[in-house]
Amino acid sequence: MKIAIAGAGAMGASFGFLLAEAGHNVILIDGWDRQVEKIKSDGLTFEINGKATTKKMDIYYPHEVKHRVNDIELVILFTKAMQLDSMLSDIQDALTANTKVLCLLNGMGHEEVVARYVPKENFLLGNTLWSAALLEPGSVKLYPGGNVNLKNRDPKSKDDAIKVVDVLSEAGLSANYADEVMASIYKKLCVNAFCNGLCTLFDVTIAEFGNTKSELEVVNQIISEIIAIAKFEGIALDHQEMMTSFETVCDPEKMGGHYPSMHQDLVKNGRLTEVDYINGVIAKKGQQYGIPTPYNKLITEMIHIKEELLNAK
Amino acid sequence: MKIAIAGAGAMGASFGFLLAEAGHNVILIDGWDRQVEKIKSDGLTFEINGKATTKKMDIYYPHEVKHRVNDIELVILFTKAMQLDSMLSDIQDALTANTKVLCLLNGMGHEEVVARYVPKENFLLGNTLWSAALLEPGSVKLYPGGNVNLKNRDPKSKDDAIKVVDVLSEAGLSANYADEVMASIYKKLCVNAFCNGLCTLFDVTIAEFGNTKSELEVVNQIISEIIAIAKFEGIALDHQEMMTSFETVCDPEKMGGHYPSMHQDLVKNGRLTEVDYINGVIAKKGQQYGIPTPYNKLITEMIHIKEELLNAK
Repeated sequence: MKIAIAGAGAMGASFGFLLAEAGHNVILIDGWDRQVEKIKSDGLTFEINGKATTKKMDIYYPHEVKHRVNDIELVILFTKAMQLDSMLSDIQDALTANTKVLCLLNGMGHEEVVARYVPKENFLLGNTLWSAALLEPGSVKLYPGGNVNLKNRDPKSKDDAIKVVDVLSEAGLSANYADEVMASIYKKLCVNAFCNGLCTLFDVTIAEFGNTKSELEVVNQIISEIIAIAKFEGIALDHQEMMTSFETVCDPEKMGGHYPSMHQDLVKNGRLTEVDYINGVIAKKGQQYGIPTPYNKLITEMIHIKEELLNAK
Repeated sequence: MKIAIAGAGAMGASFGFLLAEAGHNVILIDGWDRQVEKIKSDGLTFEINGKATTKKMDIYYPHEVKHRVNDIELVILFTKAMQLDSMLSDIQDALTANTKVLCLLNGMGHEEVVARYVPKENFLLGNTLWSAALLEPGSVKLYPGGNVNLKNRDPKSKDDAIKVVDVLSEAGLSANYADEVMASIYKKLCVNAFCNGLCTLFDVTIAEFGNTKSELEVVNQIISEIIAIAKFEGIALDHQEMMTSFETVCDPEKMGGHYPSMHQDLVKNGRLTEVDYINGVIAKKGQQYGIPTPYNKLITEMIHIKEELLNAK
């Protein structure tokens, strides 16, 4: 299958590598010059379970795609939320009536943007519990044990979704066809909502935050607000399950030892964050539905204040 | 008049110095050994308007008071909120039926503690807009332009309150008899509530915080919650006046250039904060009155998390 990875950061490059290893014709697309030039000259280095492999991969800047790439069968969207619109705008001419587009971006609320470029019958929505780190430009590391959930947006495209599930699973990416894909997006949102903003504000790892005693009430409130919003949309989430998943991510032997991605973006790299697509999307839906979501709203506002204070770009 | 200053930090020591200069018999009481020993050996250095003066002052540890001090006519309480109970417990034997006690602590919610040690007819409640800094042990600086508002708790003690107003004013401390003392306590609480917690969380000066664009909605919400609580207690505060006072304290030429006291306590000195008597008291009253106060509540919780993360004592 000819697959384009739109957004070849840590996650996108890892997926691209594994799909290429499985025999697919993969092209990477990214706008960050250091990543693009390094992979162009030296290939992509991919590490999992302590073993690193370097592989030559095709990589393009978004504006190069329309002149140089055609017949793409599947696009996997893996940009940062704020880059999604310009990525789709740059590559839209390479999308045909047969190109399926799978959105795996972090957070929530990307459907409106994708729908402007992709007809419903080609649009697959999913999320992933894989996590990855960019070690340096051209070098990524995938943490074992993730999975992908996805579903067609249009009921008549179920066969396309199942085909993509098979492609991903055969590449070792443990994909599932998920009727309840929105529930799994909400569950991941919970994990992001209680870690990302607060660890970024406190400048600590997930485990350091999770080890405080005062944090439980805050996490509890954040989750309660998300559950209320999901319920309004007809999606049932279990409070206790979400609290347990908080404990799991705090485990210092697993995710807990790391700074979450928002911290890496803002504190380490001085970049704008995806908070509007995590806590912010809950605050926005809260206002829309008339449901109070003050904790998610204040955390969103505080992250924007910190972006200003750190001159994030 | 024989006056004891219970809590001789930056504010208490400044008040004590000026009252002694005005001819009163002043004793300072404090539990911090570096402050006590320095003043015992070298006197207290007091600075205002760029001019510093050193003066010999009597200073005692709280536990020394009952054996060595008697006939106190006025106690001015100026401890940190968390130290109030133990201070009163230590000095209670030196309080007579004629000792007036003026509470000028920062924040709100101290009345219950004071009432356990002081009969209503001797209890004067006030607040102050003076601000002061501890330059080093034994050396304090008072910023010009403050005032004191105070009132008797018992209607029949108005003459006592007016006498204390005169004593303070004659010492240059610009005191007023304030029928609306709770309104002025609430107004000061607003200033503390929007600066202290947030500057401490972001590790910035008041002006740096005030210069961001995203902060206005947060300040707006904090003030709205405080106004709703005050209204429930029959105290009218004006939203626009509070927003204007926020702009005033952000002025980098005045307060704005400084870190607020909570930042000095927690970030600079690793001490526990008074947040429970600032944002926390609003959250507690909100729960009691059934009024939502999530912004003040989350800020209180976040400060407690930061206290834990910094191992504050």
